[in-house]
Amino acid sequence: MVVVPEGDNRERLLCPDCGFIQYQNPLIVVGAVCHWQQRILLCRRAIEPRRGYWTMPAGYLELHESTEQGAMREAWEEARAQIEIEALLAVYSVLTISQVQLVYRARLLSGDVSPGPESLEVHLFEWNALPWEQLAFPSVRWALQHYAQSRALQQFAPFVKPTGESEELE
Amino acid sequence: MVVVPEGDNRERLLCPDCGFIQYQNPLIVVGAVCHWQQRILLCRRAIEPRRGYWTMPAGYLELHESTEQGAMREAWEEARAQIEIEALLAVYSVLTISQVQLVYRARLLSGDVSPGPESLEVHLFEWNALPWEQLAFPSVRWALQHYAQSRALQQFAPFVKPTGESEELE
Ligand SMILES: [Zn+2]
Ligand SMILES: [Zn+2]
Repeated sequence: MVVVPEGDNRERLLCPDCGFIQYQNPLIVVGAVCHWQQRILLCRRAIEPRRGYWTMPAGYLELHESTEQGAMREAWEEARAQIEIEALLAVYSVLTISQVQLVYRARLLSGDVSPGPESLEVHLFEWNALPWEQLAFPSVRWALQHYAQSRALQQFAPFVKPTGESEELE
Repeated sequence: MVVVPEGDNRERLLCPDCGFIQYQNPLIVVGAVCHWQQRILLCRRAIEPRRGYWTMPAGYLELHESTEQGAMREAWEEARAQIEIEALLAVYSVLTISQVQLVYRARLLSGDVSPGPESLEVHLFEWNALPWEQLAFPSVRWALQHYAQSRALQQFAPFVKPTGESEELE
């Protein structure tokens, strides 16, 4: 059931059996656009949603983990990739699903990558061969486009969600 | 009780009465260092923790809210301040409390500010009169120091937590 707890000013979920109040909060997703000799690392998802489609390594930040550590962990879990963080590429507030996505730009420490349990395969794509029609989520497209714009820049403010772009799959 | 759910790889909190699994996730805090004619807006906290100490406007991001919207909302709630976001000043991963704090640099649209319900008072401080010894949290000090460093910069990467600095009050 939904209630407004005492001293609060918004509706929260309440378990009527035990009185436990679940505060629902936005979730933090961390990921990285990883490059190696002009090529970009993508992973083909082994899990739903969007199984079979391509994504950058990304996932939920864990407790007691910095955003940079989280991006490095996800690169390892999904692509057995070791990376060096270069810059905070983008901060996307995805309102429909209440996610804040922090996407880093990172350099692979070697081209030796392989699929982790959540990936069917991983691949280092030449820029001109990127699978634009088979990307898993809109934010993967935004991140790749922002990566291209960032390459000429030394210091830059993180990109934000392109205005007018749908957050949903089209 | 603490369990590892099927298909998961980490411990989660489980309610033994109803089976509800509570995924504990890092929380997102949004705030802003707000300036007006060389002065900085701070609020003296009316609530615990750190009642009576000074902070920038900041608080938890709500569902379906962008990080910029959240920073603007907090400035209004705590200081009745209307602001224009200038830049993402900093992203602090505060590991001990599993918070990711996104702090913006913002310009006040007027010097007309007043305390909201969570503030005892609000004040526009000259830089040389900032209450360094009465700041509520370490991240307020970091943000003020990073604000000073950012003023000369047009485009800059967000600052991160200073290395070697304690996350706790000293
Ligand atoms: Zn329950
Ligand atoms: Zn319960």
